[in-house]
Amino acid sequence: MPKLRPTAAANPRTKRPAAFASCRVSLQTAFLFDLDGTLVDSVYQHVLAWHEALTAEGIELSIWRIHRRIGMSGGLLTNMLLRETGLEIEPARIERLQRLHSEAYKRRLDEVRPLPGAAELLSFLTSARIPWAVATSGRLETANLALAKIGIDLSNVPIITRDQVRFAKPDPDLFIAAAESLGIDIAATFVVGDSVWDMLAAQRARALGIGLLSGGYGLDELERAGAYRVFDDPAHLLQHIDELGARR
Amino acid sequence: MPKLRPTAAANPRTKRPAAFASCRVSLQTAFLFDLDGTLVDSVYQHVLAWHEALTAEGIELSIWRIHRRIGMSGGLLTNMLLRETGLEIEPARIERLQRLHSEAYKRRLDEVRPLPGAAELLSFLTSARIPWAVATSGRLETANLALAKIGIDLSNVPIITRDQVRFAKPDPDLFIAAAESLGIDIAATFVVGDSVWDMLAAQRARALGIGLLSGGYGLDELERAGAYRVFDDPAHLLQHIDELGARR
Repeated sequence: MPKLRPTAAANPRTKRPAAFASCRVSLQTAFLFDLDGTLVDSVYQHVLAWHEALTAEGIELSIWRIHRRIGMSGGLLTNMLLRETGLEIEPARIERLQRLHSEAYKRRLDEVRPLPGAAELLSFLTSARIPWAVATSGRLETANLALAKIGIDLSNVPIITRDQVRFAKPDPDLFIAAAESLGIDIAATFVVGDSVWDMLAAQRARALGIGLLSGGYGLDELERAGAYRVFDDPAHLLQHIDELGARR
Repeated sequence: MPKLRPTAAANPRTKRPAAFASCRVSLQTAFLFDLDGTLVDSVYQHVLAWHEALTAEGIELSIWRIHRRIGMSGGLLTNMLLRETGLEIEPARIERLQRLHSEAYKRRLDEVRPLPGAAELLSFLTSARIPWAVATSGRLETANLALAKIGIDLSNVPIITRDQVRFAKPDPDLFIAAAESLGIDIAATFVVGDSVWDMLAAQRARALGIGLLSGGYGLDELERAGAYRVFDDPAHLLQHIDELGARR
C-alpha cells in the first residue's frame, strides 16, 4: 500500500507561510488591485495631465504614446519619454514634470468616478473573507483622493503606494509588499490591473495577472503581457469571480 | 496562337472611370483620410468632451467605453450610449448632448496638435500626384478648426464632413463621397483611419483599410475590423508608403 503524502500543514519541513497552515488542499486566494483604471476611472485624466506637463516643458509627444506608459512608475515614465525624444534626463526636469503632472491631474480630479462594480467587488471580497489590498505606482496623496471616490471603508486595507517601495511597476515590489502586508504568499495571489505594467509586474512576482479593459488598453496588449484572464471592468470580474476560486 | 486580352484602356466597353484611362496595369492609388486620431491628435479631447457632456446630462459611463465609440457618427454614438444605459432616446436630448460635446471639445482645442508626419505625408502625396481627400464623421466647423492645425494648403483637397452625407461611419457614405469627389473608383483606394469604424466603413465600401494606432485603439481591434495594414501614425505610414503602391 502506498504511503499517503503528508499535507502541507502536517509537514513541518515545508516552508509555507503561516497563512496556509489551515488550508490543506487549495491555496488561500487573495487579490492585489492596481488603482487608476482598475478601481477608479482616472486613466484618461492622467494621460491628459501628463500631456499638459510635457507640453509646458516644450516636449511634443502623441497622446496615445503617453497612454501606453500610464501605470508605470512616474520616474520611469519621464525617463523613457525623455530618452525617446532625445532630451536630456536632468533630475530637476523630471521633478518639474512630476510636479506639473500632479497639479494638472488634481485640477481634473472632479471628473474622476469609481469604475462600475468597484465598491461591490471589494465589499464582496471583504464579506467572503478573501484578503485584498491596493498597490499603486501613484503617490499616497493622490491615491487617497482617488480611493475616497469608491466610498467604502478602507481602514483595514493595506494601501501600498510608490512612497513605500524602491521601484514601482513594472518592477514587482509594490505587489510583493502588498502580499506581505496581507501575510499571503505572492505566488498564491491574483494581481488585478488595467495596464501591461501590472501584468508584467505580476509575472515577475509569480502572481497571476487579471487584466481589465477599463483603462483603455487593447485586449491583445494585456494578453500578450501575460494576463491569465481579461474582463471589462470590476463589475464584469465580479460576475466571473467563481472562475477565480472565490466562491460566492 | 491565343488572342491577347485587350487592356482596360484599349477596351471601350469596360466601365472604368476616366482616372484609369492612362493606366494600363496597376490601378491609380488614392488615399482617403479620417481626421481625428489619424491626422490630428484629438481623440482624447473628444473622449473627455463626450464624458463631460454625458455627465452634465446625468449619464454615468466609463471613459474607455466612450473611447471605443469615437469616430462613429455622433448621432449613432449617442443613440447607442443611451440605448445601452437604458435611457430614453429623445431627439431633444441627443441634440443637447451633441451641443454640449461640441462646446466641451472647443474648450480643449488649444491642446490639439497635428500627429507626427501628418503634414509630411500629405505633402508627399501631393508632390507625388497621388490623389487624397479627407472624410470625417465630424461637422465642417470643428473639422476646419482641426485641419488648420496641420498647416498645409487644403484649397484643392476634397473635405467630406458629416454635413454632406446622410449616414456617417461605420456607414461607407463619407468615403464613397470622398472617392467620387476625386473621380476615383472607391475599390482602388486606401482608407486611412484610427478606429474600427473606419475599417468597417472601408470594408463596406470595398476599399482597403489602413489602421493607425494614434487614436489609442489596440492593434487587435483594428486587425479584427479588417485592417489591411496597421502603422503607428502618419510618420510611420510614410516610412512604409512604398508598400502601398505609392512609390517615392
